[in-house]
Amino acid sequence: MVTRDAVAAFFLLALSIFTFADGQDFIKLPSEARRFTDTPVNGFSGTRWAILLAGSTGYWNYRHQADVCHAYQILKKGGLKDENIVVFMYDDIAYNEENPRPGVIINSPHGEDVYKGVPKDYVGDDVTVSNFFAVLLGNKTAVRGGSGKVVNSGPDDHIFIFYSDHGGAGVLGMPTNPYLYADDLIEVLKKKHASGTYKSLVFYVEACESGSIFEGLLPLGLNIYATTASNAEENSWGTYCPGDNPGPPDEYETCLGDLYSVSWMEDSDIHNLRSETLRQQYHLVRQRTAFSGNSYGSHVMQYGDLQLSMEDLYSYIGTNPANDNFTFAKDNMLHLGSPSKAVNQRDAELLHFWDKFRKAPEGSTRKSNAQKQLAEAIAHRTHVDGSITLIGKLLFGIDKGPEVLKAVRPAKAPIVDDWTCLKSLVRTFESYCGSLSQYGMKHMRSMANMCNAGVTKEQMAEVSAQVCSSFPSNSWSSLHRGFSA
Amino acid sequence: MVTRDAVAAFFLLALSIFTFADGQDFIKLPSEARRFTDTPVNGFSGTRWAILLAGSTGYWNYRHQADVCHAYQILKKGGLKDENIVVFMYDDIAYNEENPRPGVIINSPHGEDVYKGVPKDYVGDDVTVSNFFAVLLGNKTAVRGGSGKVVNSGPDDHIFIFYSDHGGAGVLGMPTNPYLYADDLIEVLKKKHASGTYKSLVFYVEACESGSIFEGLLPLGLNIYATTASNAEENSWGTYCPGDNPGPPDEYETCLGDLYSVSWMEDSDIHNLRSETLRQQYHLVRQRTAFSGNSYGSHVMQYGDLQLSMEDLYSYIGTNPANDNFTFAKDNMLHLGSPSKAVNQRDAELLHFWDKFRKAPEGSTRKSNAQKQLAEAIAHRTHVDGSITLIGKLLFGIDKGPEVLKAVRPAKAPIVDDWTCLKSLVRTFESYCGSLSQYGMKHMRSMANMCNAGVTKEQMAEVSAQVCSSFPSNSWSSLHRGFSA
Repeated sequence: MVTRDAVAAFFLLALSIFTFADGQDFIKLPSEARRFTDTPVNGFSGTRWAILLAGSTGYWNYRHQADVCHAYQILKKGGLKDENIVVFMYDDIAYNEENPRPGVIINSPHGEDVYKGVPKDYVGDDVTVSNFFAVLLGNKTAVRGGSGKVVNSGPDDHIFIFYSDHGGAGVLGMPTNPYLYADDLIEVLKKKHASGTYKSLVFYVEACESGSIFEGLLPLGLNIYATTASNAEENSWGTYCPGDNPGPPDEYETCLGDLYSVSWMEDSDIHNLRSETLRQQYHLVRQRTAFSGNSYGSHVMQYGDLQLSMEDLYSYIGTNPANDNFTFAKDNMLHLGSPSKAVNQRDAELLHFWDKFRKAPEGSTRKSNAQKQLAEAIAHRTHVDGSITLIGKLLFGIDKGPEVLKAVRPAKAPIVDDWTCLKSLVRTFESYCGSLSQYGMKHMRSMANMCNAGVTKEQMAEVSAQVCSSFPSNSWSSLHRGFSA
Repeated sequence: MVTRDAVAAFFLLALSIFTFADGQDFIKLPSEARRFTDTPVNGFSGTRWAILLAGSTGYWNYRHQADVCHAYQILKKGGLKDENIVVFMYDDIAYNEENPRPGVIINSPHGEDVYKGVPKDYVGDDVTVSNFFAVLLGNKTAVRGGSGKVVNSGPDDHIFIFYSDHGGAGVLGMPTNPYLYADDLIEVLKKKHASGTYKSLVFYVEACESGSIFEGLLPLGLNIYATTASNAEENSWGTYCPGDNPGPPDEYETCLGDLYSVSWMEDSDIHNLRSETLRQQYHLVRQRTAFSGNSYGSHVMQYGDLQLSMEDLYSYIGTNPANDNFTFAKDNMLHLGSPSKAVNQRDAELLHFWDKFRKAPEGSTRKSNAQKQLAEAIAHRTHVDGSITLIGKLLFGIDKGPEVLKAVRPAKAPIVDDWTCLKSLVRTFESYCGSLSQYGMKHMRSMANMCNAGVTKEQMAEVSAQVCSSFPSNSWSSLHRGFSA
């Protein structure tokens, strides 16, 4: 296949020069042109692959799909081809009845549409953990539904994964059940590595407590470099939220992005990524995402084979030729600015209901619906928080219960040793007390600590039955989508 | 009594000149000095009296007491004496545990302390309807508790009343039960007039649906001029609220003022009130309080003997000598500015709980308390709204019920003919369904319409019993403070 447009021609020319500069003097055959155009400066001659995954559903989670759509635009402008980008998103935002601009998704207050052109590889109920794993492993036969596109990568290839959603200790949310557990993810990454089908892999994760996905779990030597929006025990933050400065346009009653996500993307949007390393971006994102002044924030973390961070971003996400003159500078922070406020991811759905309630006309159905949504979300929270606290007290005593539940293991230790126990306790809890749902993921550490203290499934069943004689009959608590573990 | 400070001396001098300019060439005796210093330019030789009443309690209603304290400072700077200003306020704000500046109350983002020096005439549970009436009528023996100060006015005197709180059709809130019903208020105003103990009276009212207090009820010829924050069927608005621009300082999780109230006060703060008429202020306040652009607002109304509005503000609230050079100008609006947003008074308490919840540290007792407060307030709303709607359907049929409840009588008609019926239905509803509380006042029109349709106390008892087998066990619904009627 011969490339046809001017950008590709420019790439071709530039890359021939670079490959010669690298001392590789062989000539690519026409059949290899696809890989050839992707070849970067640093001795990397493979293909760039990407998986983009928004783990949530619901208009109140607008920002996760906005993040992922924005990431797609960066990769696309960076030169990656649709055949190498696999997008997972529930796709219920662009044409949601709450969306003030039907068919359009924005990721910043004055941002352009990022929805246009995004491939709908895995949407709706096809956004599952098993499809994600099958796609990453290049296992086309294991895929259920969707476009069937998988990461059919080879030993010279680079893989970039960006995930954005809610999370909890050791878990990442999905729009379907079950959720994505850290142990399973690490096993799949090991398997991918063992298959020899990538050169190196970069994993960016936006979620609450996202450090816990890799902390004490991701082995060195897999050629994987990961950064996370937060450490293992803190929330990550939404941004461009109603009430923030800058906030979304007035007609948006939801956050437009997440702080860590927009930080790496707004940086990538404007720079020549040939001259910016992963490490430089990590530091910039860490600075912008941190708590400062009257802004909230979190600690951006890095895990895995840190030496990979010396590589340029271009090797993973390409670069937009329009930015060739904009190289990374130390004072980037000043250009990017920093929002004066941010919203704890866990509270962002309440913020949506609140903002909807506040703006809806007095006496309207919209106002009473928003009030009901707010009340149901709070009822779910109260129920989940109360149940877990009471279960802790029944298991460990009134004084010691809260202490055991809140305990945090030393750095570099995984949150739990026995993941089978954790999942089993989650399922047991849910069968008596209803779904944890996205908010309930915050109690994953408490569940893990119960396992670490030797609590059995039978004990969990007994106390859950005592504590949860009933649970709120709303969509948050409902088990109609199955167990989250 | 001889005045001792420089301001008073200045007044004395200025007023001697003015009285001569008015062609009144008699010399005041020292014993008349008190009245003498109060004598304005326009032939008014009486004393200025004022009653300031904040009808609410609770930190989420910060703004009402802030409004009233601010009004006191204006009157005080205007030359009124404490002996002529009677203040009613629950006084639970300045030292409230939520107040970030203990002992200080502000009424605007950069405003100075307005709490300092405010007389505590009637505070706590002494803020009652019967004390308000006794004070206005100058009936010292009828007063219970408090300072005992009453409006001991004579035939030449001017009276200014400023009320700020929640309201509903035909009713104004009080921090104690019962609330203040329009028919009782009008009767007291008539009685005051009949006693010949004032020359004219100006009444400013901040409350939702405050037009309904006077609409079709206040007779002409009582020498009373009233303005209200809203017409008879709309909400009034809080201002300087979290999320507004300008909003309160970050540490305040509550609205600092009400839109109509701060409009008349920020105007009065800066002008020479000898040269500004009530009418000019009415128009300015009406303009600032109106809905415009992306701001919400209400229709400021005027009632009673409108010719009084040609009088200057000075005759009622004095003037601050420091403003002698600042006269009223047509473009005042531009100087005052207008907040870009405002919060429906009925939602302001939810805003407080929300803002507290949003800002409280994750996992803190403060956060869970705020969540509980939010949930309880919503549960109360859902319960009251649902009960009234269902009662309407039972009484008038599933289709016709909502229509009857929402009906609005023609302009200039009072909301109800039989006020005894209205109060009786309120008490009956509350005895089965729990307290209406401040939020529940929004249903007063529905109750009035039931009376207008001939519903009896016995019918109300029957349907209330059917609808309210139980009610939420929280402070909003509790009847521990008695009935609101």
